[in-house]
Amino acid sequence: MRIALAQINTVVGDFKGNSSKIDWFIKQAQKLKADIVTFPELAICGYPPEDLLLKKHFVEDNLKALNSLVKKISSIVVIVGFVDRDKSGHLYNAAAIISKGKIKGICHKSRLPNYGVFDEKRYFKTGKKSPLFVMNQIVFGVNICEDIWEPGGVAGLQADKGAQLIINISASPYYAGKESLRKKILIKQAKETRTYLCYNNLVGGQDELVFDGDSVIFDFTGKEIIRGKQFEEDLIVADLPVKKTAKKNKGKNCIKISVPEKSKKPVLQQRKVKKSKEINKIYSALILGTHDYIRKNGFQKVVVGLSGGIDSALTAVIAGDAIGKENVVGISMPSRYSSAETQKDARILAKNTGIRLITISIEKIFKVYLGALQKEFSGLKNDVTEENLQARIRANILMAFSNKFNWLVLTTGNKSETSVGYCTLYGDMAGGFAVIKDVPKIMVYRLAEFVNEKENEILIPESIIVREPSAELRENQKDRDSLPPYAILDEIIKGYVEEDKSSQKITTNKISIGTVRKIIRMIDKNEYKRRQSSPGIKITSKAFGKDRRFPITNKYREY
Amino acid sequence: MRIALAQINTVVGDFKGNSSKIDWFIKQAQKLKADIVTFPELAICGYPPEDLLLKKHFVEDNLKALNSLVKKISSIVVIVGFVDRDKSGHLYNAAAIISKGKIKGICHKSRLPNYGVFDEKRYFKTGKKSPLFVMNQIVFGVNICEDIWEPGGVAGLQADKGAQLIINISASPYYAGKESLRKKILIKQAKETRTYLCYNNLVGGQDELVFDGDSVIFDFTGKEIIRGKQFEEDLIVADLPVKKTAKKNKGKNCIKISVPEKSKKPVLQQRKVKKSKEINKIYSALILGTHDYIRKNGFQKVVVGLSGGIDSALTAVIAGDAIGKENVVGISMPSRYSSAETQKDARILAKNTGIRLITISIEKIFKVYLGALQKEFSGLKNDVTEENLQARIRANILMAFSNKFNWLVLTTGNKSETSVGYCTLYGDMAGGFAVIKDVPKIMVYRLAEFVNEKENEILIPESIIVREPSAELRENQKDRDSLPPYAILDEIIKGYVEEDKSSQKITTNKISIGTVRKIIRMIDKNEYKRRQSSPGIKITSKAFGKDRRFPITNKYREY
Repeated sequence: MRIALAQINTVVGDFKGNSSKIDWFIKQAQKLKADIVTFPELAICGYPPEDLLLKKHFVEDNLKALNSLVKKISSIVVIVGFVDRDKSGHLYNAAAIISKGKIKGICHKSRLPNYGVFDEKRYFKTGKKSPLFVMNQIVFGVNICEDIWEPGGVAGLQADKGAQLIINISASPYYAGKESLRKKILIKQAKETRTYLCYNNLVGGQDELVFDGDSVIFDFTGKEIIRGKQFEEDLIVADLPVKKTAKKNKGKNCIKISVPEKSKKPVLQQRKVKKSKEINKIYSALILGTHDYIRKNGFQKVVVGLSGGIDSALTAVIAGDAIGKENVVGISMPSRYSSAETQKDARILAKNTGIRLITISIEKIFKVYLGALQKEFSGLKNDVTEENLQARIRANILMAFSNKFNWLVLTTGNKSETSVGYCTLYGDMAGGFAVIKDVPKIMVYRLAEFVNEKENEILIPESIIVREPSAELRENQKDRDSLPPYAILDEIIKGYVEEDKSSQKITTNKISIGTVRKIIRMIDKNEYKRRQSSPGIKITSKAFGKDRRFPITNKYREY
Repeated sequence: MRIALAQINTVVGDFKGNSSKIDWFIKQAQKLKADIVTFPELAICGYPPEDLLLKKHFVEDNLKALNSLVKKISSIVVIVGFVDRDKSGHLYNAAAIISKGKIKGICHKSRLPNYGVFDEKRYFKTGKKSPLFVMNQIVFGVNICEDIWEPGGVAGLQADKGAQLIINISASPYYAGKESLRKKILIKQAKETRTYLCYNNLVGGQDELVFDGDSVIFDFTGKEIIRGKQFEEDLIVADLPVKKTAKKNKGKNCIKISVPEKSKKPVLQQRKVKKSKEINKIYSALILGTHDYIRKNGFQKVVVGLSGGIDSALTAVIAGDAIGKENVVGISMPSRYSSAETQKDARILAKNTGIRLITISIEKIFKVYLGALQKEFSGLKNDVTEENLQARIRANILMAFSNKFNWLVLTTGNKSETSVGYCTLYGDMAGGFAVIKDVPKIMVYRLAEFVNEKENEILIPESIIVREPSAELRENQKDRDSLPPYAILDEIIKGYVEEDKSSQKITTNKISIGTVRKIIRMIDKNEYKRRQSSPGIKITSKAFGKDRRFPITNKYREY
């Protein structure tokens, strides 16, 4: 049996675009004489459609798109994800198994994730439909995403009933380290169920999520047969000697699918997907997430405020890699507190990366604001007010360019500063997409070094990487004035935000309870800022945004 | 049997505050010789605790708070909501039934809402514990919020097993019209189950939600015995002749609770809660939501940008009613496009309401920005860029006052403009709390008239109410330049946003499909702005925020 997994990049709500992409991949699979071609979870409507699912006509348009597709299918079996609806109007996260212009069977997802970024119980009913299929004496079952995550679970039941091959269609979002977890579970399932296991994951960015593809086929001993690319569309084709698996069921009680026409099959090309290091993968996730947010939302160009610091430098480099340096504009907006060094570094960065640089001083504007406020603020000391004024002047300038030229503003805040609120709401937080929002500062450094190593070419000047971090919003300001070293800060954030640990549990020999409490207090206090932050790419096990739903009004105190 | 329903205003995470409040209400109920006193759903930890529930130590602190409370209870039966945890670590939304220093029984919520603003399946397991209790030959059952909403359901089962009295503890958030729905369901349940029905709802604001109280007791024929205040804390006490309900169960298989000490009971005062009109209720919801957001987050004063228009006028009046006029500061920030009339109206409004007014012209600042951008924008026409610049200058000024004096900025956008994006991100959208975010423009007018009528005193000058709406960001600008009349706009928004209707279904004799499509397009296109908006009070059946989870990246087109 020749099977093809189409690892495609869908767009939420784009029935036309998704359908023609599915169509194109079916044709490619047919050229390669595949017997079956599979597509990801909810490939028809894109994943996750969120509250679009509450619109009846949206679900109907998804059914129409499926039906148009069904009519076109002749010489290949197609398995594709869509939203099914029963007579009472309940929705199911479903897979259609299509052959010769007909839906031969439908499977409903039974494990609905409702944690982290997932809200599937908000929309779908728990599925109970899980028929087996038989084709050319091969019995196979189909299940959806989380269905395969539970030991025993759906795959176990399907195998018990005689399935020799299990096809799982998924939309499993990426975070650093998730692939190894996924791999472990899939190998365990293949071994325990003694089935061939085809795992077809989605690829592409959707708002805060990046789906990484990385589709894979294992044999019944858990050996990897073939693996798809990560962070790219791909068609993975393999010949599976499924008949070798001895199972009792020979197709009894299975939905029969007649074998597609036989003809000489072309020899499949050997392929090997290169293994990447973790930091490379994280970088790829950022590129894909940034590219897809920009392009799927119809923007041509982006603009980034370049401070001469490492965060904006990395953001600009990522943007250039994502959509081309000619589509990235940097704006340097020095003030009385900007050092000659950082201004120079902004210029070198622009030169190294080949992006256009505009320079606009905020000094005059800042002065006029101070004048306008003088009367009301007279006798009061300078404080964070005057710092934020500057950040917000810069935001206003960036947004002016955005409004005038339809450039998307990328914000440059990292996870460490977003956590503790070391950022100005409506200032440096202003923008449409926050590229490194979920990247802790220490990882920002690692990415900056990776960027310089990957093409063996210095993009981010060394001076940016080694300079002590400063917001440059007052004289001689340094991040360490109010924050512990970033290695410590990032560890506290990981413990508190990602792992929900108590302050006691975060405390170590190196990190005092006082420091932990201080940071937790800052994280809690700044929930209101994060509530108004722009979306950004999730790359850790828990990102701010829909992954972490925290009350603003909250008197729980761990400090 | 004398029962007391304590309709209290809890704070999420405030174990200490909530516990001492519960304590105080127990004492009041004891003074009135109540046999039972009840408290709302999750009263121990506040509702909804959201992802605080994912922290083990939070759940433990909630159990500790419950246990300290239990120890103090002697001569009265207390029923209180808390988070229960089983041996496997699963959480339940629970009620403890406490008597003489012991938890006599625990009930688990079985209907977990996971739609609209609710995410209960994210945290809790479906409960199966629902024991009955017997006290002084009266059999009663306890259930939680949504449990009572299902016909038959939990209350039906409890009644079938012999319950004569059903106590429901709730945290049911308000929206206009919800009380009548709630009342209908409760009466139906009382009648069908032939039980006395005590409904104890939470009161108070929590981020975007306002819980309205409105607790009530019905007899077994569905007749109202007593009702609590709406939008205020209250203790509702009534003597229920429960023994009159003929039920077979005389306490078999019930948890026995010994009757609290008998002594002469004081005569209860007659009371009648005044019925209010809908618009009055909406106004009260806005007052409570605004008050609680400000106070629970520790702010003393607020600041509002006063344009001389109706939205900021209404917002300022609400703020004054919520926390006192002495705690509200208005800032008028005229530009070259501000008319003499609106500037004058801002002054009259401040005078009428007694709030302090600061005036800062943005003209000079605006000019300096234009100068700074001149080179890059040369040869280009003025457009929305220059309009947004002004709005963002005002935001920067408001935020400067906020930073300098720790005043919370209230934003003034209504639901109609938030829907179609007739507002400036980081401009008039900037602020900590959006008081009238969910109030459609037509309702803004009704509220303005209500405000002037309620004390028979003109607070909002008539000229503000009758003037044609304008953002005053360019010469002769009027809202109607780009929007249909608000009556039409609001109807489209209701159909599309609140009711998820298709464009065809929204179209009527008076509203063309073209207009509908244009507005839907605007609503969809501006999802990115709303994602960064501040929280505001839900008063309709579907508000923006966690009530409506919409993708930004979305190519579904109904236009």
